Amino acid sequence: MTRQIKLGAFLPGGGQHIASWRHPDQPADGATSFEFHKRLALTAERGLFDAYFLADGLAVSFGGASEGGSAKVAGLEPVTLFSALAPLTSHIGFIATASTTYEEPYNLARKFASLDLISDGRAGWNVVTTATEAAAHNFNLDQQHPHAFRYARAKEHVDVVKKLWNSFEDDAFIRDKESGAFFDPDKLHATDHRGEHFKVKGPLNVPRSPQGHPVIVQAGQSEDGRGLAAATAEVIFTAHQRLETAQEFYRDIKSRAQGLGRDPRHILIMPGVSPFVGRTSEEAREKYDRLTSLILEQDGIALLNGLTGGTLDLNGYDLDGPLPPAAPTEGNKSRQALIRQIADENNFTIRQLYQWVASARGHFTVVGSAIQIADTLQEWFENEGADGFNILPPWLPTALEDFVNLVIPELQRRGLFRRAYEGRTLRENLGLSYPHNRWSAARHAVQAAE
Amino acid sequence: MTRQIKLGAFLPGGGQHIASWRHPDQPADGATSFEFHKRLALTAERGLFDAYFLADGLAVSFGGASEGGSAKVAGLEPVTLFSALAPLTSHIGFIATASTTYEEPYNLARKFASLDLISDGRAGWNVVTTATEAAAHNFNLDQQHPHAFRYARAKEHVDVVKKLWNSFEDDAFIRDKESGAFFDPDKLHATDHRGEHFKVKGPLNVPRSPQGHPVIVQAGQSEDGRGLAAATAEVIFTAHQRLETAQEFYRDIKSRAQGLGRDPRHILIMPGVSPFVGRTSEEAREKYDRLTSLILEQDGIALLNGLTGGTLDLNGYDLDGPLPPAAPTEGNKSRQALIRQIADENNFTIRQLYQWVASARGHFTVVGSAIQIADTLQEWFENEGADGFNILPPWLPTALEDFVNLVIPELQRRGLFRRAYEGRTLRENLGLSYPHNRWSAARHAVQAAE
Repeated sequence: MTRQIKLGAFLPGGGQHIASWRHPDQPADGATSFEFHKRLALTAERGLFDAYFLADGLAVSFGGASEGGSAKVAGLEPVTLFSALAPLTSHIGFIATASTTYEEPYNLARKFASLDLISDGRAGWNVVTTATEAAAHNFNLDQQHPHAFRYARAKEHVDVVKKLWNSFEDDAFIRDKESGAFFDPDKLHATDHRGEHFKVKGPLNVPRSPQGHPVIVQAGQSEDGRGLAAATAEVIFTAHQRLETAQEFYRDIKSRAQGLGRDPRHILIMPGVSPFVGRTSEEAREKYDRLTSLILEQDGIALLNGLTGGTLDLNGYDLDGPLPPAAPTEGNKSRQALIRQIADENNFTIRQLYQWVASARGHFTVVGSAIQIADTLQEWFENEGADGFNILPPWLPTALEDFVNLVIPELQRRGLFRRAYEGRTLRENLGLSYPHNRWSAARHAVQAAE
Repeated sequence: MTRQIKLGAFLPGGGQHIASWRHPDQPADGATSFEFHKRLALTAERGLFDAYFLADGLAVSFGGASEGGSAKVAGLEPVTLFSALAPLTSHIGFIATASTTYEEPYNLARKFASLDLISDGRAGWNVVTTATEAAAHNFNLDQQHPHAFRYARAKEHVDVVKKLWNSFEDDAFIRDKESGAFFDPDKLHATDHRGEHFKVKGPLNVPRSPQGHPVIVQAGQSEDGRGLAAATAEVIFTAHQRLETAQEFYRDIKSRAQGLGRDPRHILIMPGVSPFVGRTSEEAREKYDRLTSLILEQDGIALLNGLTGGTLDLNGYDLDGPLPPAAPTEGNKSRQALIRQIADENNFTIRQLYQWVASARGHFTVVGSAIQIADTLQEWFENEGADGFNILPPWLPTALEDFVNLVIPELQRRGLFRRAYEGRTLRENLGLSYPHNRWSAARHAVQAAE
């Protein structure tokens, strides 16, 4: 089968761009409105997106806007939200973010396996280590753990969760009313994990889910992050401004994965793209200018400070002058570096920088007609820059609708995107392999050898 | 308004009675079937039940059946399940069990507030401390914390969660697109909790939910449990075999609550009732005998062992002889005592005991016609034994349908039960007061004084 573009959609009800809630099209209460999220899910499914993707944080976030100006101050917990959307949709996947630093593996394994069962195989877990001081203060800590500690814990956490998801073999359930045998105890396996960070005996009290287990997604770009992604992820969400850096990342991850004995086709690299789509490039530019004009100055400054982990003090600097240097961070190192790169490469003033990153926080922003945008996506897709994209519509629902109504048909015309969902599960639609139960696989190997 | 009976329904898809999965009516895969849970929710809503209630455990449970015979070995996580059921229903509440011992307050507060928002005010939290060794082994512990420690932590945990649910005042959100003011920072409050068990700075990143906060439910019956319930619970789930002990409990809790300055009408006492309903008492008895006949001997023994916290070794004892003494437990103390009481009061053999508790694990089992069952419920309701009942249909869906089709109309005829939902939220239907935001209340008090 011809390789085609995979598409995720980032659809926080509060909008992606920091000023999006001020846009006339967007409901001001979108962040906490279930009905609005339902509308977004149905629109994305009409566009045949592989998945609806949601980020998550474990503290009040001003998300780049100054306190009172932030529509990101409050929202809904993603797994709870996605579970409610699951029965109202039939094909779109749901990738929820959850933290390895502040959730216990047993609880996390249960809720994602439950979501996978309820959605009939459409769940994904975006693994994050949660890089903010504010979150640490909500979980009994005075300061957050160092970057390296968080990643070491994350690696072990994912390992434990996967072990838990292997508790029941696929054919463990007998359910024979006559004999009273509900399941085969030989096909229920303890986890017996004793590691540096976790002691988890298991087994999990949720059965294997339709996908074997939910799709594992990761977004780390630092050295630690790349290592974790290459070892564990099936989908990688990444941020690049130029094809060259995307290619470097793409080749690096695929080669790391191969080095670890994994099939590189089963790790999908999906950079973020923030599209302003017009029927013409002029119309697209007008949409960009209109949204940009809604950014308040204090919100732009707060945005840059937030993206650099609070290490950038812009007090007293001329907004129409260059970006000053930032202090080191134990937070999101790669995001801090990316912001610096965008400023340097474009020779941006502070104001131009915050205007540019306001739509997607360092993800690639494209402004143009459907043909121009399809050209860009095609170029990245066909030149080892991407296996697909995570679309971050800058405001909602219009920018999502523009993409569905204008760009999707153009990609379909080029044979680059599906005309109908191929499969039932998220895993099938993404073309990822089915993770066989470890214990069943071992059993089959023994039987084959005998 | 006339006081009426409130009703919760315990509807685990795997059934309540240990042999229920073997009953011809019950789908053998009910425990993990979303469609089956949906059917149960719609049936309970047709019966105008206040709430759908689910217990929860954090380890594989054999639920009283021996390993391979247990349909309780695996299920769905309750909040995830209820969230999916919320948009498919319109009035019934959802009371999910979650643990103060193994969940962090910040995570728990988020998911329940999200469920309350998604369901438009129909969420309840059944607060449990999780009393099993097996759960401790899934959360980095070699043995579970002592009973008293768990209850001390629970008290602080509920306090922190309630503080988090007060983060935003009711009118915190301005959402003025023109000025760019999304919310009023003066109406967002840090939690600043530093206690013996938790340090949580807050605020919560989910807004106040339609009920102010989800309804707090508790089921403790030990001295510690009663103290926690009187201090924090709005609904109390309890287990009694006789009206006299129910009355003792009812009066004790109401008086403790009053002593703590609470309005005793706002703590609803709802004992569990397992009904075998027939058109005649003979038909009801046949239903009881039929289900009882499906219990395997080893499952009955495992049930008694499970209910007493693994402290009862029945090895070598005659099943048609009396119950031997049990060792002390750090698990569920009150349940252990209740099982002993049932055996003593009824002069039951081991076999008779497991047959009797198989349907509802120590909750009150009633076998009779709709009129007989309504008589019993009415007697308890009118004599300070109960404000309502948690119905535990012994097998599903039939025993639930029997109750809805036969007992509900009889209660309605007597004016003891609603003919339509009174309110929009669970809290309104239960007749519970709205918990005003602490900060708003303080602000109004200051304004009134000025």
